[in-house]
Amino acid sequence: MKISHIEHLGIAVKSIEEALPYYENVLGLKCYNIETVEDQKVKTAFLKCGDTKIELLEPTGPDSTIAKFIENRGMGVHHVAFAVEDGVAQALAQAEGEGIRLIDKAPRKGAEGLNIAFLHPKSTMGVLTELCEK
Amino acid sequence: MKISHIEHLGIAVKSIEEALPYYENVLGLKCYNIETVEDQKVKTAFLKCGDTKIELLEPTGPDSTIAKFIENRGMGVHHVAFAVEDGVAQALAQAEGEGIRLIDKAPRKGAEGLNIAFLHPKSTMGVLTELCEK
Repeated sequence: MKISHIEHLGIAVKSIEEALPYYENVLGLKCYNIETVEDQKVKTAFLKCGDTKIELLEPTGPDSTIAKFIENRGMGVHHVAFAVEDGVAQALAQAEGEGIRLIDKAPRKGAEGLNIAFLHPKSTMGVLTELCEK
Repeated sequence: MKISHIEHLGIAVKSIEEALPYYENVLGLKCYNIETVEDQKVKTAFLKCGDTKIELLEPTGPDSTIAKFIENRGMGVHHVAFAVEDGVAQALAQAEGEGIRLIDKAPRKGAEGLNIAFLHPKSTMGVLTELCEK
């Protein structure tokens, strides 16, 4: 697979409203978009940091996977997303061929309309890994 | 503070030898350096991914902070390091002025001879955060 860069870091927070002053006023990053993805039960805030986005993830309900993540592990980095140059479908096929367990067997639409797919952290040494169309 | 990009991601692994085939053969990233930092009780492997490095961290003994991290939370992202353009000392002073708890009160030398300092995850919503000289 050809990875060009880290597309984004997903970071689980209890409250975007409480997290943004740290990211904006202390780190000096700029939030350029906030949206709620109802079917994922998550509110997201995007900030840019070089070529990489920081995606803050706030649960919108107690049964959100992000709420469960925070309950189990506390706030922190939830996933790492790599931008692949040769297409997500091809990257998935290659990963599966190398014995990697897939969460998504085929690409699906993620944030900002990009094709995405997740690899299972059991196969990636604990890092929930997203592949993202460049 | 002026952050230009994510300098590196520190990822805790039980074994660099076992982790590298995933990073190199599946993700296609290249390891360009492996070294042991005795006083930190850690062996590190560096791979490049766009502007960001991936720093794999393997404990060299059971009393290594990385060993404790893995024991408590499992393998995964250990810290996020931001490259600051206006100097680590100034960035630390600003962060402290904003009420952020510091792990390092002053810059110290980190990997590759860069000035670095850590912010406490209690103040950064769970993300152990390193500031790194650009």
